[in-house]
Amino acid sequence: MQWVKVLGGVVGAAALLGLGIIVGHFAIPKGADSPAPSASASQDLDREILKTVIEQLDANRIRENLRELSKEPHLATSPRDEVLVQLLLQRWQDPQSGLDSARTTEYEVLLSFPSEEQPNRVDVVNSTGAILFSCRHSEENLTGEQGGPNVVPPYAAYAPPGTPQGPLVYANQGSEEDFKELQNKGVKLQDSIVLTRYGGVGRGAKAVNAAKYGVIGVLVYTDPKDINDGKSLPNETFPHSWCLPPSGVERGSYFEYFGDPLTPYLPAMPSSFRLNSDNASGFPPIPIQPIGFKDAQVLLCQVNVSVHNRLELRNSSNVLGIIRGAVEPDRYVLYGNHRDSWVHGAVDPSTGTAVLLELSRVLGTLLKKGTWRPRRSIVFASWGAEEFGLIGSTEFTEEFFSKLQERAVAYINVDISVFANATLRVQGTPPIQSVVFSAAKQISAPGSSGLSIYDNWIRYYNRSSSVYGLVPSVGTLGAGSDYAPFIHFLGISSMDIAYTYDRSKTSARIYPTYHTAFDTFDYVNKFLDPGFTSHQAVARTAGSVLLRLSDSLFLPLNVSDYSETLRSFLQAAENLRVPLAQHNISLGPLVTAVEKFEGAATSFNQRIATLQEGTSDPLQVRMINDQLMLLERTFLNSQAFPEERYYSHVLWAPRTGSVATFPGLSNAYSQAENAGHKPAAWAEVQRQLSIVVAALEGAAATLRPVADL
Amino acid sequence: MQWVKVLGGVVGAAALLGLGIIVGHFAIPKGADSPAPSASASQDLDREILKTVIEQLDANRIRENLRELSKEPHLATSPRDEVLVQLLLQRWQDPQSGLDSARTTEYEVLLSFPSEEQPNRVDVVNSTGAILFSCRHSEENLTGEQGGPNVVPPYAAYAPPGTPQGPLVYANQGSEEDFKELQNKGVKLQDSIVLTRYGGVGRGAKAVNAAKYGVIGVLVYTDPKDINDGKSLPNETFPHSWCLPPSGVERGSYFEYFGDPLTPYLPAMPSSFRLNSDNASGFPPIPIQPIGFKDAQVLLCQVNVSVHNRLELRNSSNVLGIIRGAVEPDRYVLYGNHRDSWVHGAVDPSTGTAVLLELSRVLGTLLKKGTWRPRRSIVFASWGAEEFGLIGSTEFTEEFFSKLQERAVAYINVDISVFANATLRVQGTPPIQSVVFSAAKQISAPGSSGLSIYDNWIRYYNRSSSVYGLVPSVGTLGAGSDYAPFIHFLGISSMDIAYTYDRSKTSARIYPTYHTAFDTFDYVNKFLDPGFTSHQAVARTAGSVLLRLSDSLFLPLNVSDYSETLRSFLQAAENLRVPLAQHNISLGPLVTAVEKFEGAATSFNQRIATLQEGTSDPLQVRMINDQLMLLERTFLNSQAFPEERYYSHVLWAPRTGSVATFPGLSNAYSQAENAGHKPAAWAEVQRQLSIVVAALEGAAATLRPVADL
Repeated sequence: MQWVKVLGGVVGAAALLGLGIIVGHFAIPKGADSPAPSASASQDLDREILKTVIEQLDANRIRENLRELSKEPHLATSPRDEVLVQLLLQRWQDPQSGLDSARTTEYEVLLSFPSEEQPNRVDVVNSTGAILFSCRHSEENLTGEQGGPNVVPPYAAYAPPGTPQGPLVYANQGSEEDFKELQNKGVKLQDSIVLTRYGGVGRGAKAVNAAKYGVIGVLVYTDPKDINDGKSLPNETFPHSWCLPPSGVERGSYFEYFGDPLTPYLPAMPSSFRLNSDNASGFPPIPIQPIGFKDAQVLLCQVNVSVHNRLELRNSSNVLGIIRGAVEPDRYVLYGNHRDSWVHGAVDPSTGTAVLLELSRVLGTLLKKGTWRPRRSIVFASWGAEEFGLIGSTEFTEEFFSKLQERAVAYINVDISVFANATLRVQGTPPIQSVVFSAAKQISAPGSSGLSIYDNWIRYYNRSSSVYGLVPSVGTLGAGSDYAPFIHFLGISSMDIAYTYDRSKTSARIYPTYHTAFDTFDYVNKFLDPGFTSHQAVARTAGSVLLRLSDSLFLPLNVSDYSETLRSFLQAAENLRVPLAQHNISLGPLVTAVEKFEGAATSFNQRIATLQEGTSDPLQVRMINDQLMLLERTFLNSQAFPEERYYSHVLWAPRTGSVATFPGLSNAYSQAENAGHKPAAWAEVQRQLSIVVAALEGAAATLRPVADL
Repeated sequence: MQWVKVLGGVVGAAALLGLGIIVGHFAIPKGADSPAPSASASQDLDREILKTVIEQLDANRIRENLRELSKEPHLATSPRDEVLVQLLLQRWQDPQSGLDSARTTEYEVLLSFPSEEQPNRVDVVNSTGAILFSCRHSEENLTGEQGGPNVVPPYAAYAPPGTPQGPLVYANQGSEEDFKELQNKGVKLQDSIVLTRYGGVGRGAKAVNAAKYGVIGVLVYTDPKDINDGKSLPNETFPHSWCLPPSGVERGSYFEYFGDPLTPYLPAMPSSFRLNSDNASGFPPIPIQPIGFKDAQVLLCQVNVSVHNRLELRNSSNVLGIIRGAVEPDRYVLYGNHRDSWVHGAVDPSTGTAVLLELSRVLGTLLKKGTWRPRRSIVFASWGAEEFGLIGSTEFTEEFFSKLQERAVAYINVDISVFANATLRVQGTPPIQSVVFSAAKQISAPGSSGLSIYDNWIRYYNRSSSVYGLVPSVGTLGAGSDYAPFIHFLGISSMDIAYTYDRSKTSARIYPTYHTAFDTFDYVNKFLDPGFTSHQAVARTAGSVLLRLSDSLFLPLNVSDYSETLRSFLQAAENLRVPLAQHNISLGPLVTAVEKFEGAATSFNQRIATLQEGTSDPLQVRMINDQLMLLERTFLNSQAFPEERYYSHVLWAPRTGSVATFPGLSNAYSQAENAGHKPAAWAEVQRQLSIVVAALEGAAATLRPVADL
């Protein structure tokens, strides 16, 4: 899981009633050949099959998957990564529990590694350059698993090499405000090295911000307050608790964008055009290196940082496993997670892959027995090189751009499946809310509460919906994992599912050993989910969602749940009404467009309900499903954000402006405010408003009766 | 018809066998409610209906349509333009022969008009500024129709106002080469006025090229050699022949792009964001004015040009008429033409609109009688403000972007339906070739030859196809009429259909009175098509194509006909193999991609043939049809040509490079050649090559069996 851009808050969105489930079995059209059971064009989701799948998802098998997956470090493109590619292929090609087909696709991508010959160093030196203190080059080998040649030393991937030396300045989180404040206080930043703590802004942003003030090098450490609820002593951290030990260092990608850095918008085939790495953009401008908090505590005075990272072109594999749809093989429900880790990666990403393998085993077994075949095709994916910037998944969306845009129903991402055992946590776009709720209501929460996953969830994360009352809150999708290219670049309804913390018990920014050598099988087995019941709960929830999306006659995507989001964005925009009017910009067309969407969505749902009552023919169902599938695409505008690589979804692009409204409007408004009375800045506000209005009008139009152009 | 960009040659593309026609009637699925005749999901094209439609298309009715349409000048947004909007609405809402529904959509767009108070002037002056000679402000009123307040004086739409004065230099066609040659010969261009003739390059390009050499004003005239086969005397030109009289002046838009100049990529709603017209791009940089050839002959010495054009925001209407599809109402076959003219516009565009109205009358009558309803929806469109730059159609594609991208099957354009009576002439993308051939074989050519339209056509325009042998050649689509936004911006398979010249009898650049006040009903009735049988032939051909596209069970789009185009582009690219290799650029991946497309297309056609033999269920047909419909979309890449507004089709973007291969490759190669050894220029060649390879790989992928991701 790439944490860099997970900064968007939990802007909720809602649905309860959803599309419901239709049980009526209609006549099989004459002449249809029946490739398998359930091949009837009017067959709906089979409740018995759903129950069987949920029952068969086994916690112990997930544990054994995890043990195998996290046995050794498997950094992207390492030999162990390749072993796991073969493991996945073997599972998906198994005669008893495999899928219809499985294969790998390989991309040649630019990764960044520390030099083996010249380890990166951080030394405190005196005025003559003599070394007074050196930071550790690697984490302490506390359990025998943190050593060895396959544990990559802590480094900042894509940081440029260099050996800057200068006085050390503490710069908090390295945000723009942090540097501004230091400057205002008269602290000399020119030619300094700054020490920053993780959090607040993305990793690479710390170096970008620092360089603007003449800083020549950056150190980053994980603060015990942020990650360990303040615990920092050896006897209160791993292996004595789940907390990060003093020597633990978070690795990570410091690349600003996602996808292969040399082939934006093109699949990274060996023959593809590549930017020269000298003029590729998005890399940190100055050397940067992560260190442990123990070392951070003792740093003083003059510091010398030696970074010897190297860029390398490597072959990275995705593994794809396919179950062919019986009735609509040209509709794809995608389910994926990345495979590569920084070290052993037990939590990140193997808790997700362990669930993926168990789910594919259960479905594969039903398939091979001839018991079941889904209505639509299912594509399982194991992505490569996610940790370096969602590279495998992004290249996949570039290579299969047309097919996915035309045929993908939804993308389900389960990266870290278990952060902790308290509650379900879901991020996604509004149309997926209802199907997740339906699934979560049907499955028991782990533990002895007797509650459903849904009823447990609502205790931890909830919001008051104007449509449904109190419901669990579904978070928004940033760019923290492989769902990013699916939602932002392709406009495919997407979600990310996990089990997570009780926030009243920990304020840890993320689980403490994230991206360190202490993220191992025993850590999960001992501290995170000893019974693997949270893993099982995620497997069951995600499995139920997958089956509902692939087997329901009408797609269980409730597009009308976008209305609540649009309404909340509109309400926030109302705060801008007066200042906008001062620049002759009216919110009127936006209000009208939101109302049109709401009206069209309500009527559309009524038409579906009517169709469900009668006997509907396969083409009518297909036409409705096409509207459901393609609604999310209508929010894409490739002209909207020319500076933001891949981002084209006008509702979910990154928002930097302070007003919680449509991101393009919010950002342009903030910029115009800062720019004072520059007409071009206010013209951009009007342009962004027009882009949103056109998108909403277009979205409403696609929901209207199809013969009314 | 906007002629500006019709520079692409007739690069042919081919198909004979095509998809053929399937007659088998399959079972009606139970439970389908039957909204109308032919509502069976497996109903194929009804040959009897097709025959009826062709028989009922009436030449005299077309003549009477044309008489009414061209009775008065109907410049875009003029009162008469609005009268025609009402005429179209009334026809399409007629209880006996109307469509299911009809409505207008209005856009507020930026047009350009000459000042009424200060007519544009071109005067020859002596050194003291005294006027020695003045060009006519308007055409001679030869038949009583060229005068009157509604005849807009000749002008260059979007030319900036100004009153430059300077010595006159003859600059041929005003191309880059022309100016280079003048400079090489030592002719002083700085502060001069240049006289150019129409042709060679686009209208606006003459001013763009001239301004680079310090020229301060441009005149454009129509040379009798180019338009009249050399005839120039009053007694050998109109009204004595179809030739342009000495006072005739071609009006036209001098805007470089298309669509509303102030709202690129956004529908021109009143509330839409508008560029400030001062920083809108694409207008001629210096004053420019068209004149007649009689005046051009006498121009000498010092010339004063006074241009007083004004930009005005105007409301321009499209009229849309819809026939709801019985089985697949969410699939749209579009048929359109523009309505606005420069003066009376009998030929351009009323010959097309007269045909449109006759076709909609015949289909509307069958509809109202309950005899017929198409399988798919049909959308008839009358576009506004085409003459100013395809504005109505472009704004339509912007407003209905999502719907059209998802649901449009094809776009049929019939602008000028009759240039002359010799032969059919079709431009389009390869998938439409086979359906046009099928239609043309079934209809008799006008005249006494006894040949079919197809057999007559092949005598005038033909090529040797590697697949089919000798076939009529189908030309490529530039940006000369309203098909441009459909093919270039949206990737919808498009075509333009007309009857045209015997090129052995005239070398006229276009029919001589094009865009002049002499383009009147009598001109058509007397010289162009006295019996209106060519009009009828176009109505029948386009009507048959429309019916085949809307009613055939399998869409009659033969995507495999793209293979021949790709092969010819590839062969041309082979000429670059050696020079590319010198810059380490390999054609290997392109060869592989073309081969993959060919293989996928062949297999795809085989699967269709197999399906046609058996009894296929409606969903299987729909899946195949989705592949057929969406193949054209797979060639779009919004990142390919960032400088070319709207152009995103990687096969049909404008080609300026000399090698007749993929336009992006050809253009980048030419630029790199001119740039010498600049690495960035060769990198762009490699990037363009990768873009084409990715598009072809994606296209091939969408044709493969849908369950094989």
